[in-house]
Amino acid sequence: MTLDDLRQDIDRVDEVLVRLLNERARCVCEIGRLKKEQGIEIYQPDREKEVLRHVRAVGGEGPLGPDAIGRLFERIIDEARRLERRVVHEQG
Amino acid sequence: MTLDDLRQDIDRVDEVLVRLLNERARCVCEIGRLKKEQGIEIYQPDREKEVLRHVRAVGGEGPLGPDAIGRLFERIIDEARRLERRVVHEQG
Repeated sequence: MTLDDLRQDIDRVDEVLVRLLNERARCVCEIGRLKKEQGIEIYQPDREKEVLRHVRAVGGEGPLGPDAIGRLFERIIDEARRLERRVVHEQG
Repeated sequence: MTLDDLRQDIDRVDEVLVRLLNERARCVCEIGRLKKEQGIEIYQPDREKEVLRHVRAVGGEGPLGPDAIGRLFERIIDEARRLERRVVHEQG
Protein backbone atom coordinates (compact mmCIF):
# COMPACT_ATOMS: atom_id res chain seq x y z
CA MET A 1 0.00 0.00 0.00
CA THR A 2 1.15 3.51 -0.78
CA LEU A 3 1.03 6.56 1.49
CA ASP A 4 -2.00 7.80 -0.48
CA ASP A 5 -3.86 4.50 -0.08
CA LEU A 6 -3.28 4.56 3.66
CA ARG A 7 -4.41 8.17 3.91
CA GLN A 8 -7.59 7.32 2.03
CA ASP A 9 -8.17 4.48 4.50
CA ILE A 10 -7.74 6.94 7.37
CA ASP A 11 -10.22 9.36 5.76
CA ARG A 12 -12.80 6.56 5.49
CA VAL A 13 -12.21 5.50 9.12
CA ASP A 14 -12.52 9.16 10.20
CA GLU A 15 -15.90 9.49 8.48
CA VAL A 16 -17.22 6.52 10.47
CA LEU A 17 -15.63 7.85 13.67
CA VAL A 18 -17.40 11.19 13.18
CA ARG A 19 -20.72 9.44 12.55
CA LEU A 20 -20.32 7.33 15.70
CA LEU A 21 -19.23 10.29 17.82
CA ASN A 22 -22.40 12.11 16.76
CA GLU A 23 -24.50 9.00 17.41
CA ARG A 24 -22.97 8.79 20.88
CA ALA A 25 -23.72 12.48 21.39
CA ARG A 26 -27.38 11.90 20.50
CA CYS A 27 -27.60 9.24 23.24
CA VAL A 28 -25.94 11.66 25.67
CA CYS A 29 -28.49 14.40 24.87
CA GLU A 30 -31.32 11.95 25.41
CA ILE A 31 -29.78 10.89 28.74
CA GLY A 32 -29.59 14.58 29.73
CA ARG A 33 -33.29 15.02 28.99
CA LEU A 34 -34.21 11.91 30.99
CA LYS A 35 -32.10 12.95 33.98
CA LYS A 36 -33.70 16.38 33.95
CA GLU A 37 -37.21 14.86 33.76
CA GLN A 38 -36.49 12.47 36.59
CA GLY A 39 -34.64 15.02 38.72
CA ILE A 40 -31.38 13.04 38.58
CA GLU A 41 -28.05 14.89 39.03
CA ILE A 42 -26.40 15.47 35.60
CA TYR A 43 -22.83 14.83 36.73
CA GLN A 44 -22.36 11.14 37.50
CA PRO A 45 -18.67 10.53 38.18
CA ASP A 46 -19.17 6.81 38.86
CA ARG A 47 -20.69 6.27 35.42
CA GLU A 48 -17.79 8.21 33.82
CA LYS A 49 -15.29 5.96 35.62
CA GLU A 50 -17.22 2.91 34.43
CA VAL A 51 -17.07 4.16 30.80
CA LEU A 52 -13.30 4.63 31.08
CA ARG A 53 -12.81 1.19 32.63
CA HIS A 54 -14.87 -0.35 29.83
CA VAL A 55 -12.97 1.25 26.93
CA ARG A 56 -9.56 0.60 28.49
CA ALA A 57 -10.54 -3.05 28.85
CA VAL A 58 -11.83 -3.50 25.28
CA GLY A 59 -9.03 -1.48 23.66
CA GLY A 60 -6.02 -2.65 25.61
CA GLU A 61 -4.77 -5.06 22.95
CA GLY A 62 -4.59 -2.59 20.06
CA PRO A 63 -1.64 -0.38 19.03
CA LEU A 64 -2.92 2.62 20.99
CA GLY A 65 -2.93 0.73 24.28
CA PRO A 66 -5.15 1.40 27.31
CA ASP A 67 -3.53 4.71 28.32
CA ALA A 68 -4.00 6.45 24.96
CA ILE A 69 -7.53 5.02 24.69
CA GLY A 70 -8.22 6.33 28.20
CA ARG A 71 -6.89 9.81 27.35
CA LEU A 72 -9.02 9.97 24.18
CA PHE A 73 -12.18 8.91 26.01
CA GLU A 74 -11.54 11.45 28.77
CA ARG A 75 -11.93 14.06 26.03
CA ILE A 76 -14.96 12.35 24.50
CA ILE A 77 -16.60 12.31 27.95
CA ASP A 78 -15.61 15.94 28.44
CA GLU A 79 -17.37 17.00 25.22
CA ALA A 80 -20.35 14.81 26.15
CA ARG A 81 -20.65 16.55 29.55
CA ARG A 82 -20.49 19.96 27.89
CA LEU A 83 -23.24 18.99 25.41
CA GLU A 84 -25.44 17.40 28.08
CA ARG A 85 -25.30 20.55 30.21
CA ARG A 86 -26.23 22.69 27.20
CA VAL A 87 -29.21 20.48 26.38
CA VAL A 88 -30.43 20.57 29.97
CA HIS A 89 -30.04 24.37 30.20
CA GLU A 90 -31.89 24.98 26.92
CA GLN A 91 -34.69 22.76 28.13
CA GLY A 92 -35.03 24.37 31.52
CA MET B 1 -35.88 4.22 26.27
CA THR B 2 -34.61 4.12 29.83
CA LEU B 3 -31.33 5.50 31.16
CA ASP B 4 -29.96 1.94 31.26
CA ASP B 5 -30.93 1.27 27.63
CA LEU B 6 -29.19 4.46 26.52
CA ARG B 7 -26.08 3.63 28.53
CA GLN B 8 -25.97 0.21 26.94
CA ASP B 9 -26.19 1.87 23.52
CA ILE B 10 -23.27 4.12 24.47
CA ASP B 11 -21.23 1.11 25.61
CA ARG B 12 -21.83 -0.58 22.22
CA VAL B 13 -20.90 2.60 20.32
CA ASP B 14 -17.77 2.93 22.47
CA GLU B 15 -16.66 -0.59 21.59
CA VAL B 16 -16.85 0.24 17.89
CA LEU B 17 -15.10 3.58 18.49
CA VAL B 18 -12.23 1.79 20.23
CA ARG B 19 -11.95 -0.72 17.39
CA LEU B 20 -11.87 2.06 14.78
CA LEU B 21 -9.38 4.14 16.75
CA ASN B 22 -7.06 1.13 16.86
CA GLU B 23 -7.63 0.46 13.14
CA ARG B 24 -6.73 4.09 12.43
CA ALA B 25 -3.63 3.70 14.62
CA ARG B 26 -2.55 0.67 12.57
CA CYS B 27 -2.71 2.78 9.39
CA VAL B 28 -0.72 5.50 11.13
CA CYS B 29 2.01 3.02 12.15
CA GLU B 30 2.21 1.75 8.58
CA ILE B 31 2.46 5.34 7.31
CA GLY B 32 5.29 5.94 9.79
CA ARG B 33 7.17 2.92 8.43
CA LEU B 34 6.67 4.04 4.82
CA LYS B 35 7.82 7.59 5.56
CA LYS B 36 10.93 6.25 7.29
CA GLU B 37 11.70 3.92 4.36
CA GLN B 38 11.25 6.71 1.84
CA GLY B 39 13.07 9.32 3.91
CA ILE B 40 9.96 11.50 4.24
CA GLU B 41 9.62 13.90 7.22
CA ILE B 42 7.31 12.36 9.88
CA TYR B 43 5.60 15.60 10.87
CA GLN B 44 3.35 16.77 8.03
CA PRO B 45 1.33 19.76 9.27
CA ASP B 46 -0.48 20.22 5.94
CA ARG B 47 -1.85 16.69 6.09
CA GLU B 48 -2.96 17.24 9.69
CA LYS B 49 -4.83 20.39 8.63
CA GLU B 50 -6.45 18.46 5.79
CA VAL B 51 -7.63 15.75 8.22
CA LEU B 52 -9.19 18.42 10.48
CA ARG B 53 -10.88 20.16 7.56
CA HIS B 54 -12.29 16.83 6.41
CA VAL B 55 -13.79 15.78 9.75
CA ARG B 56 -15.22 19.24 10.48
CA ALA B 57 -16.90 19.14 7.07
CA VAL B 58 -18.39 15.66 7.44
CA GLY B 59 -19.43 16.13 11.10
CA GLY B 60 -20.76 19.66 11.04
CA GLU B 61 -24.44 18.67 10.96
CA GLY B 62 -24.46 16.43 14.04
CA PRO B 63 -25.12 17.42 17.65
CA LEU B 64 -21.42 17.83 18.46
CA GLY B 65 -20.90 20.44 15.74
CA PRO B 66 -17.66 21.19 13.88
CA ASP B 67 -15.80 22.76 16.82
CA ALA B 68 -16.21 19.82 19.20
CA ILE B 69 -15.41 17.40 16.36
CA GLY B 70 -12.31 19.47 15.59
CA ARG B 71 -11.17 19.43 19.24
CA LEU B 72 -11.63 15.65 19.47
CA PHE B 73 -9.68 15.03 16.29
CA GLU B 74 -6.88 17.32 17.43
CA ARG B 75 -6.41 14.82 20.27
CA ILE B 76 -6.74 11.81 17.97
CA ILE B 77 -4.05 13.31 15.70
CA ASP B 78 -1.92 14.06 18.74
CA GLU B 79 -2.02 10.42 19.88
CA ALA B 80 -1.36 9.30 16.28
CA ARG B 81 1.73 11.52 16.09
CA ARG B 82 3.01 10.12 19.39
CA LEU B 83 2.52 6.54 18.18
CA GLU B 84 4.07 7.21 14.76
CA ARG B 85 7.21 8.65 16.36
CA ARG B 86 7.49 5.64 18.67
CA VAL B 87 7.20 3.22 15.73
CA VAL B 88 9.83 5.09 13.74
CA HIS B 89 12.21 5.22 16.72
CA GLU B 90 11.86 1.53 17.47
CA GLN B 91 12.52 0.74 13.83
CA GLY B 92 15.56 2.98 13.48
